[in-house]
Amino acid sequence: MPEFRQNMATKEWVIIANERARRPDEYIESDTYVTTDMNPSFDKSCPFCPGNEELDLEIECFPESGPWQTRVVRNKFPALSMEGDLTRTFDGVHRRISGVGHHEIVVEHPLHNTTLGMMSGEEIKYALETFYNRGWSIRKDSRIEQIIYFKNHRERAGASLKHPHSQIIGLPVVPTNIRHRIEEARRYFDDNGECVFCVMMRDELEKKERLVATSEHFAAFVLYAAPSPFHIWILPRQHSVSFLYSQPDEIEDLGELLRVVLRKLYVGLNDPAYNLIIRSAPVKEISNDYLHWYVTVIPRLSRTAGFEMGSGMYINPALPEESADFLRSVEIN
Amino acid sequence: MPEFRQNMATKEWVIIANERARRPDEYIESDTYVTTDMNPSFDKSCPFCPGNEELDLEIECFPESGPWQTRVVRNKFPALSMEGDLTRTFDGVHRRISGVGHHEIVVEHPLHNTTLGMMSGEEIKYALETFYNRGWSIRKDSRIEQIIYFKNHRERAGASLKHPHSQIIGLPVVPTNIRHRIEEARRYFDDNGECVFCVMMRDELEKKERLVATSEHFAAFVLYAAPSPFHIWILPRQHSVSFLYSQPDEIEDLGELLRVVLRKLYVGLNDPAYNLIIRSAPVKEISNDYLHWYVTVIPRLSRTAGFEMGSGMYINPALPEESADFLRSVEIN
Repeated sequence: MPEFRQNMATKEWVIIANERARRPDEYIESDTYVTTDMNPSFDKSCPFCPGNEELDLEIECFPESGPWQTRVVRNKFPALSMEGDLTRTFDGVHRRISGVGHHEIVVEHPLHNTTLGMMSGEEIKYALETFYNRGWSIRKDSRIEQIIYFKNHRERAGASLKHPHSQIIGLPVVPTNIRHRIEEARRYFDDNGECVFCVMMRDELEKKERLVATSEHFAAFVLYAAPSPFHIWILPRQHSVSFLYSQPDEIEDLGELLRVVLRKLYVGLNDPAYNLIIRSAPVKEISNDYLHWYVTVIPRLSRTAGFEMGSGMYINPALPEESADFLRSVEIN
Repeated sequence: MPEFRQNMATKEWVIIANERARRPDEYIESDTYVTTDMNPSFDKSCPFCPGNEELDLEIECFPESGPWQTRVVRNKFPALSMEGDLTRTFDGVHRRISGVGHHEIVVEHPLHNTTLGMMSGEEIKYALETFYNRGWSIRKDSRIEQIIYFKNHRERAGASLKHPHSQIIGLPVVPTNIRHRIEEARRYFDDNGECVFCVMMRDELEKKERLVATSEHFAAFVLYAAPSPFHIWILPRQHSVSFLYSQPDEIEDLGELLRVVLRKLYVGLNDPAYNLIIRSAPVKEISNDYLHWYVTVIPRLSRTAGFEMGSGMYINPALPEESADFLRSVEIN
């Protein structure tokens, strides 16, 4: 019998479709994407490979001197423009805002043929520190209200270039969807006097059936109301609204835990397509009791179709408890 | 310069990314999906072809006697189960509801190698009447709160079988996303004393720049704040909350207008993947001043990636006015 499960934080219902459920190993990818033998470590046509840098697009490199480990460039085809004034126009029916904002690319590694799931914790920490530094820099632009940090891995998840990279978009508005989430979290706090994310994490740490991995400062689990197979949340154990208030030891710890989670996906599901998103509070939200930042990793193993678009509700053909159990059992080096 | 545009009805912002905009003809599909010469009119392995009917799954046929024109069957792998009680369980952290509901398939035509974009208005009307009849039947089940009518055309839009068909899912809850839309529409009415959908349609009929086609009872236009290329709304001119209160002449008229819209997409973009959704009020909502049912046709010409998932905001690389202009100019027979 299928069941509806509700995400307590967002109040969204999902259908866990037991009757069409597939076993975890049925989600293993047949082809590989990043393999060192079929794919060179340097590609002469790749704009992100060392030696091919388009210097006019460069924002900064880390470290600042010597060969770069991560590199930040402007998107060549930006969704938003850094220049120009923030103007609002409303003619009674049509409301629009000039498309100002930031759109940056973080090249995560000098090697062309690697991916977060193959990197060391130290290398992932380096990418996270780059997000952190760029986040603080973008935050200085007073027009910016919200920063979205995200990664698209493989074409099915929206990647158009193979070289490992992520993106950062700074927006002059807080998107409606994020506002709804904030309202729900606030309502939960009003009713219960606790952060809903803290409550959910505590339960996962106690029950353990959906846990994937834990570290000193973070906990990674498959969501009880996972909208899609292997949908993972990684929450800081310490309540905090924003990624930008993380301490250096927390970022280091997250690098190592992300390595474990992404390596388990890489090994267990044969390098699946996924999106990784850092969900952090609007930048002007410095502290409150009800919002909790986190990282989400969403393997792209099922399709969104008319039902999901029409209802906003997802059908998940994988049991979250089985997905978590499968990932726990994947051995990694 | 890109711009943010707001959908007045849902309050959702989209980014119209002029700087990465592609011309309408760059969206033309390279391969065809439904072609009569490469694809037989009867496929002996297709469960929806006449002669192959799985009679134990059959719900009803139209017309009731003689060869069927449309046929309704239970989904062999239903997302929800028709049997069982609606039970709610809440243990303090996890809220769940038993997965009861309806999941039906509407076979739209006896021929294997056709699609709505190739059918006559009369044939499309027949499919719409089948939706209507099934909607009224599902509505009798007092457990059901919301019906989603949808079509997935081509694999990229989620179709797994080629034979022309749609689906109907009856849900025992009103999805969160639909509740948000209802609240926004109600708020607009509170502030302005008019249905926001009526206001948007009136504007499109006046300005004409985003109109695709009109008929006596309906207007089809590309949305001002279209989240994706060629995103079309088809609204009844007469304010009404539900598809289920349509009159026979309105359904006939909609069949003909849908034919025009889908044929233009079929001819102009070479049979693109799309989702078609009927967005109708929760079934127990019989009449109000602020909700307005409509049909939306969403070609699947761009990918959702980490940004969209993280923000709920879409980046549209096509100008809605250019998309509409392109479709207006497509000549059809």
